Amino acid sequence: MAITMGDASGVGPEIVLRRAAVGPLGNVVVYGDAAILRHGARLLGLDVDIRPVTDGVEDGLAPGALNVVDLALLAADDHRPGQLSAAAGAAARAYVERATTDALAGRVAGVVTMPMNKEATQRSDPTFVGHTELIAALCGAARVTMMLTNGPLAVTHVSTHCSLQEAIRRVTTSRVLDVITLTHDALARFIARPRIAVCGLNPHAGEHGLFGQEDIEHIAPAIAAAGERGIDASGPHPADTVFFQAVHRDRYDAIVCMYHDQGHGPMKLMAFEDGVNVTLGLPIIRTSVDHGTAFDIAWTGQAFTASLDHALSYAWKMAGAQ
Amino acid sequence: MAITMGDASGVGPEIVLRRAAVGPLGNVVVYGDAAILRHGARLLGLDVDIRPVTDGVEDGLAPGALNVVDLALLAADDHRPGQLSAAAGAAARAYVERATTDALAGRVAGVVTMPMNKEATQRSDPTFVGHTELIAALCGAARVTMMLTNGPLAVTHVSTHCSLQEAIRRVTTSRVLDVITLTHDALARFIARPRIAVCGLNPHAGEHGLFGQEDIEHIAPAIAAAGERGIDASGPHPADTVFFQAVHRDRYDAIVCMYHDQGHGPMKLMAFEDGVNVTLGLPIIRTSVDHGTAFDIAWTGQAFTASLDHALSYAWKMAGAQ
Repeated sequence: MAITMGDASGVGPEIVLRRAAVGPLGNVVVYGDAAILRHGARLLGLDVDIRPVTDGVEDGLAPGALNVVDLALLAADDHRPGQLSAAAGAAARAYVERATTDALAGRVAGVVTMPMNKEATQRSDPTFVGHTELIAALCGAARVTMMLTNGPLAVTHVSTHCSLQEAIRRVTTSRVLDVITLTHDALARFIARPRIAVCGLNPHAGEHGLFGQEDIEHIAPAIAAAGERGIDASGPHPADTVFFQAVHRDRYDAIVCMYHDQGHGPMKLMAFEDGVNVTLGLPIIRTSVDHGTAFDIAWTGQAFTASLDHALSYAWKMAGAQ
Repeated sequence: MAITMGDASGVGPEIVLRRAAVGPLGNVVVYGDAAILRHGARLLGLDVDIRPVTDGVEDGLAPGALNVVDLALLAADDHRPGQLSAAAGAAARAYVERATTDALAGRVAGVVTMPMNKEATQRSDPTFVGHTELIAALCGAARVTMMLTNGPLAVTHVSTHCSLQEAIRRVTTSRVLDVITLTHDALARFIARPRIAVCGLNPHAGEHGLFGQEDIEHIAPAIAAAGERGIDASGPHPADTVFFQAVHRDRYDAIVCMYHDQGHGPMKLMAFEDGVNVTLGLPIIRTSVDHGTAFDIAWTGQAFTASLDHALSYAWKMAGAQ
């Protein structure tokens, strides 16, 4: 499994190092800069055996060591903990490109990504929109969606980073059906028949058309179409009670949400520190930690390291290895 | 404290009886129909001493008994467990009118309401919109809002039962400021300086205008104006992280939400069975249980009774008695 170390100024490589210092990460290889990892280990006073794998992952991995596909883009002098750096942003992009290419070629089982900093990467590439968009473009994937999971429950979203006004516009039958299907296909990797609850857009799922028509006009037909494809999808459910039913009554494996906060609000309440993001719709497995570069606390030893274990574990689960 | 028994066909009077059978309810008087309560107690096989207080609450309450301001609108024969009944709907409305009038006159400390059934009440009064609207009209209150609380944390809403599209339109500076002020005034009854977090409308509170302008144009000015009034209001906060900060970091006493599911999603996940609704902006104290008439399980002994204790306890807290 590949781990991209993320922006060198942020918490990504710090978390990798602190986690590696505690015990073996398993059959993984880090895509990044060995010079930064070595400098970082010294900075944090950690004893980590950093072993470059310059000829690619076919080299074979040294057990007990932190094996690194060393892109050698940054030197120790380039390390600017907590500071925006164009060089670090460009390098973070390169780690992701290399790991994605290797995953597409089947050289790694999948990619676990540590956070990039959008602003830093945009300094060298003004067209950079986001981490997921970059990977989707490298894979030639047109329909992707983000899944957030705490392990037992996963949520997906019809839209994420757009205004609520725009999110309402994006609730179309075809998009909702796409997201239901992507959710089903992802969970069907390890659950025989995933139980998928689909939220309404409006409060009480519109209460039979009393509060808006989108639930009737766009969402219900998508659920019906998913059913015709053999998917166990139900709804539209009122978004304020479906989480309780899933979490405390174990009635669903996944909840399809209509917009960002509908899913993120309840999920982050439960799994703020150990949520895992999964990109669906890619030809490769990609999970990521559910936080950003956190420049304000980067390289100070404060960042939680458990998120990496969760992201790694979920990637292995999707790969059928757990 | 007044308790209105709610629609006779629903779980309201059942919960009052089952709770009363367990032990004393304290200094409370039920507004309802003694004939229904007696019939209901027989139906459930409960031993409850139902004591009518026909001349009003000044009679003095019998300790150990369930004291009832008996409106004598329904007979035992009128009891239709789980069935929609125009007579029960009209009676439920009358209990609320009488209790509200008594609260306005200072004869009771406040009103705890058990659920009405909208459709049943509309059979005799087609203009009936809802329980809260009825009480607001009786009190002549123009600006009310619903607060949902699990005890330590309260959430209020700029809008509740309308489409998401309409909810966006209702996010105006004056309405947001009203809700912040109502929230502050309610909690200031028992917290010296309530800490109020205000959510953004858009994901990440709009990320500095990247995802919508409402957070900057309407919400931020309302927070600034609240601060000028001496209110400890902060935000706009991203709605997906503020609940974690409130619940797991104890940073806020209340969260002002921009629409129904933004607040109800996280809250119902935490407090599905013991949430309390509080109507703010009234000249009287009014709390209610956070569920409906539940005709499907009414009078079968399945409904949770703890909700009544929570609603009662919060009403006493607001009255300064706890």
